[in-house]
Amino acid sequence: MSHHLSAEMRACIENCLRCYSICLSSFSGHCLEAGGEHIAPAHARLMLACAEICRTSAHFMLLGTPHHRHTCAECAEICRECAADCERVGGMEECVAACRRCAESCAAMAA
Amino acid sequence: MSHHLSAEMRACIENCLRCYSICLSSFSGHCLEAGGEHIAPAHARLMLACAEICRTSAHFMLLGTPHHRHTCAECAEICRECAADCERVGGMEECVAACRRCAESCAAMAA
Amino acid sequence: MSHHLSAEMRACIENCLRCYSICLSSFSGHCLEAGGEHIAPAHARLMLACAEICRTSAHFMLLGTPHHRHTCAECAEICRECAADCERVGGMEECVAACRRCAESCAAMAA
Amino acid sequence: MSHHLSAEMRACIENCLRCYSICLSSFSGHCLEAGGEHIAPAHARLMLACAEICRTSAHFMLLGTPHHRHTCAECAEICRECAADCERVGGMEECVAACRRCAESCAAMAA
Repeated sequence: MSHHLSAEMRACIENCLRCYSICLSSFSGHCLEAGGEHIAPAHARLMLACAEICRTSAHFMLLGTPHHRHTCAECAEICRECAADCERVGGMEECVAACRRCAESCAAMAA
Repeated sequence: MSHHLSAEMRACIENCLRCYSICLSSFSGHCLEAGGEHIAPAHARLMLACAEICRTSAHFMLLGTPHHRHTCAECAEICRECAADCERVGGMEECVAACRRCAESCAAMAA
Repeated sequence: MSHHLSAEMRACIENCLRCYSICLSSFSGHCLEAGGEHIAPAHARLMLACAEICRTSAHFMLLGTPHHRHTCAECAEICRECAADCERVGGMEECVAACRRCAESCAAMAA
Repeated sequence: MSHHLSAEMRACIENCLRCYSICLSSFSGHCLEAGGEHIAPAHARLMLACAEICRTSAHFMLLGTPHHRHTCAECAEICRECAADCERVGGMEECVAACRRCAESCAAMAA
């Protein structure tokens, strides 16, 4: 993942894979244990959807397809929504931060 | 995959997973063996990107997230492009047909 | 997905993608709504792990890599465990049946 | 991806996601452009299979399923094979290094 890709794209891929990792591990390691609001259907689906679009967005950039702009745009939107929902639920600061950072770099890649 | 999902969505999921299957197996089992135009970078990346977005689109519908509309819209666009490119290259009728059918049902889900 | 692949492998791919679809949509559309035992951490993780290994097993067969034997063996094991756990929890007959069928064809592919 | 996971597991997840990233971007950005041995069917399939099993192995650790031992064992095996094949083909030092490092940490996780 390297000389073929710009520094900005490499950073965006890393932000996507980090956000994917934190969403999935927070859902499984924290939300499932905490219960309550953490496991409300809409919140759970949003976290799993966020993990998946981050994974796909990274995949498109790694492939080097020009369609990455569209997956990055969608990724930025879902990450923003996930950050807001995790903030509302509370106790998920790491996830909020990862989603915000990913949203920012994806929005820049989509522009 | 069932009583939770409408008949139209179930059909779209099946079209996505079928298009994913045909794009990936055609790339690996046919394009890599045939060489030439089949393995030109842009064609190869498009087939792999098409396989990935079909997989993701199905995933979003199975999760039941309202964001499926956006992944379906993107899936329809990539599938149409992939169908056109496979037609141009030639000898990929199965892939052309699967991409067209997937594009059609994804476009309807995105509307 | 076709002339490159044996009829047995095509059937196994379809069983994997069907089991993936049912595990993911049952988790999201049924378990998250039902709560209780359906959302106990170990059950939830098992269903999500089952969905993922089915997806990967299908991917390996579609790629045509000889390593599919190992992912199919692992898929058979996880599917059997998921079927048993869904039976214990109850009300998940569709998932039990899909897991059993997938386990059977994956075990045959792994042999 | 954090307090729920041991430091060793976090490092293994990072090695897996890095190896996934390098295998996929090297295949698409380097091998497809270079042609020849780089695009021989067996080499191409091995690189794509390596990318996929790394992705799945990371997913299993992030989910926190005990089955990660088996996907890590398979990941170590495929990474070793991919490293050897990339070395044989030549000009793929970054991929060789990432595969070796991932194989080592996955083998330790599988033990």
